[in-house]
Amino acid sequence: MSLIVQKFGGTSVANAERVMNVARIVTDTYKKGNDVVVVVSAQGDFTDVLVAKQQEINPNASKREQDMLLAAGEQISISLLAMAIEKLGFHAVSLLGWQAGFETSSAHTAARIRRVVPDRIRAALDKRNIVIVAGFQGLSRYGDITTLGRGGSDTSAVAIAAAMHADLCQIYTDVEGVFTADPRKVRNATKLDEISYDEMLELATLGAQVLNNRSVEMAKKYNIELEVLSSLTQAKGTIVKERTKKMEKMLISGVAKDTDVARISITGVPNIPGIAFKIFSKVSAKGINVDIILQSIGHDGKKDISFTVAKSKGQEAVEALRDYVDSIGASGILYDDNVAKISIVGAGMESHAGVATKMFEALYDAQINIRMISTSEIKVSVLIDAAYADKAVSAIHEKFFG
Amino acid sequence: MSLIVQKFGGTSVANAERVMNVARIVTDTYKKGNDVVVVVSAQGDFTDVLVAKQQEINPNASKREQDMLLAAGEQISISLLAMAIEKLGFHAVSLLGWQAGFETSSAHTAARIRRVVPDRIRAALDKRNIVIVAGFQGLSRYGDITTLGRGGSDTSAVAIAAAMHADLCQIYTDVEGVFTADPRKVRNATKLDEISYDEMLELATLGAQVLNNRSVEMAKKYNIELEVLSSLTQAKGTIVKERTKKMEKMLISGVAKDTDVARISITGVPNIPGIAFKIFSKVSAKGINVDIILQSIGHDGKKDISFTVAKSKGQEAVEALRDYVDSIGASGILYDDNVAKISIVGAGMESHAGVATKMFEALYDAQINIRMISTSEIKVSVLIDAAYADKAVSAIHEKFFG
Repeated sequence: MSLIVQKFGGTSVANAERVMNVARIVTDTYKKGNDVVVVVSAQGDFTDVLVAKQQEINPNASKREQDMLLAAGEQISISLLAMAIEKLGFHAVSLLGWQAGFETSSAHTAARIRRVVPDRIRAALDKRNIVIVAGFQGLSRYGDITTLGRGGSDTSAVAIAAAMHADLCQIYTDVEGVFTADPRKVRNATKLDEISYDEMLELATLGAQVLNNRSVEMAKKYNIELEVLSSLTQAKGTIVKERTKKMEKMLISGVAKDTDVARISITGVPNIPGIAFKIFSKVSAKGINVDIILQSIGHDGKKDISFTVAKSKGQEAVEALRDYVDSIGASGILYDDNVAKISIVGAGMESHAGVATKMFEALYDAQINIRMISTSEIKVSVLIDAAYADKAVSAIHEKFFG
Repeated sequence: MSLIVQKFGGTSVANAERVMNVARIVTDTYKKGNDVVVVVSAQGDFTDVLVAKQQEINPNASKREQDMLLAAGEQISISLLAMAIEKLGFHAVSLLGWQAGFETSSAHTAARIRRVVPDRIRAALDKRNIVIVAGFQGLSRYGDITTLGRGGSDTSAVAIAAAMHADLCQIYTDVEGVFTADPRKVRNATKLDEISYDEMLELATLGAQVLNNRSVEMAKKYNIELEVLSSLTQAKGTIVKERTKKMEKMLISGVAKDTDVARISITGVPNIPGIAFKIFSKVSAKGINVDIILQSIGHDGKKDISFTVAKSKGQEAVEALRDYVDSIGASGILYDDNVAKISIVGAGMESHAGVATKMFEALYDAQINIRMISTSEIKVSVLIDAAYADKAVSAIHEKFFG
């Protein structure tokens, strides 16, 4: 008998028919003799309905109350799924985040899981119940309802799997797994059987949002085997684990596109120590994450520093820097959010020379200009004009997989 | 400084505009220097939305999961009201039933409040917050979410008022107070300034559902002064308390109609001891409440036993009795749910002869046939054909108040 954690997103439980579909998947797993813990998100666009209710009353409401409001979404979906499972003749118990033992920080709307104390989950499993847990939510030390922020239900599922030493954590979604590129955009995109945590992390960060990266980080840390698969087709999905069999053979795992990116360049920065530190501490003080950073070699005692941030944070980052940029006598700040980041990811590239070259060649063949380059052990990212993003993905995918 | 508990029903918080209206009432009370605890029901017909979701998936879902589902309704309304209060520049904290200290029995969908431990409410008040509590819900000793059943939010409000020794408990609703008869149906119906707990209890039981009777019972037990008033007009409402000034003068307080009633008659019952006991124990074993009971004097060793129950329980009550009725050799069971119960209530009638007679006269004048009569110290009820219910109320009201 194995312990399997299954997570279903909002699309998978969007209406009564889909809830029944999920109930069948869950009970099929249970009938095979497994203990099953199910983590569910709020139904379809119900979170949007709640946000709209808030917007109408107070767009600047406290985050504590926002969490109280949003957490009602999963409360509805877990009870409905429990009812669907009962309908199929099985025993089910739904648990809210706090009942399932989710202790979080008190950073409302973006709380971190401190620990999961799965006593009630375990007790309910021992009585042969299927246990359904509200994803995305927990309780702070002050006894207040918290939410984990975007993609939080994936993290909830992995956290339970880690706390309970589950044998497998299945993340059901509306795609069949992790693909070498977006299958809606790229012909020949193929599903990967396996991918390593690190590759998955890079893909998540790079805008191929199949899995929330906090959840992959946690899976890596606790060595939880993940499977990404579709709740509609139930075809075999993609396994995410530490080391994959094909790792040595595979050059790259996939091509990803991220259009939620803005480039900020500070030009004519005096070439003296500490400037970069000060620039990025001003940006991070606003809670803005910086992605790619590039610094020119510098000449005449001046250099340029460029970096990228999420589009929604672009103007805020510029504002945070303007005074400082003036004070150090830099030439100015350039801002461009009409860009896209195209990346290739693959643990194999570490030991294979020429992977980046092959990518650049594909872009050259397609006559796409590269505006910024960044590399790590397992990825190469380039910044290009947003207009050429899809063309670039196809050209690179063709070069490696075609 | 007083402690005031204010309760708002679903109609009062049905949309953003009404939520803002409630926020203004609450903050006006707070600005006068009072501590304010607000109890809120789920928005308008949101409970119906949730019930419809359940019906589509599993009409026979466990009561535990029904409670989990329904309790999401107040979670939404309390957070929205907190946000509206914040919008007006005041501090508010919303609390779910379990956070507010509501410990209940584990009778899901109809739980009883065991006690309220208002530590968190008090702590939040001490920090000058307006505290908003989810009505209708609590937590069982097993840590499961429970709901209190119909009208439960009134009971929640009174329970908090009792536990915290509040100075006043205001029940805001969509009518301006307690009337001598339904003002939508009866010309000249007038609002009462005051009414006693006992009169209010009889009125609640009799279908004039201004206040849930569990809440009135609790208010009487703990001597909590209630005020029933409208959230829309905010005009002075009706005070419900132990003894009213007008009690001696007022003959009756009001005329009430209840159409949710079915009459069951067992005819030809052998006139031997213990039969009535056995009949009603079989009905109560099904959890069915019996209202009026009448037993004929009996002749030829046979008698008739008639009683009324809620319409929705009528068939179930008949089924529960059929075998037993056969076994004792009674003639049969008659069932009729095309009836209405009309009642007059008034603490004054105890010391005034002829009140019942005056009621019967009004019905005679209107040519309405009386099918069953029941009396207590402060009420007289008659069962008539449902078709004449409104006509009967008008005729009786005219006789006493016209």
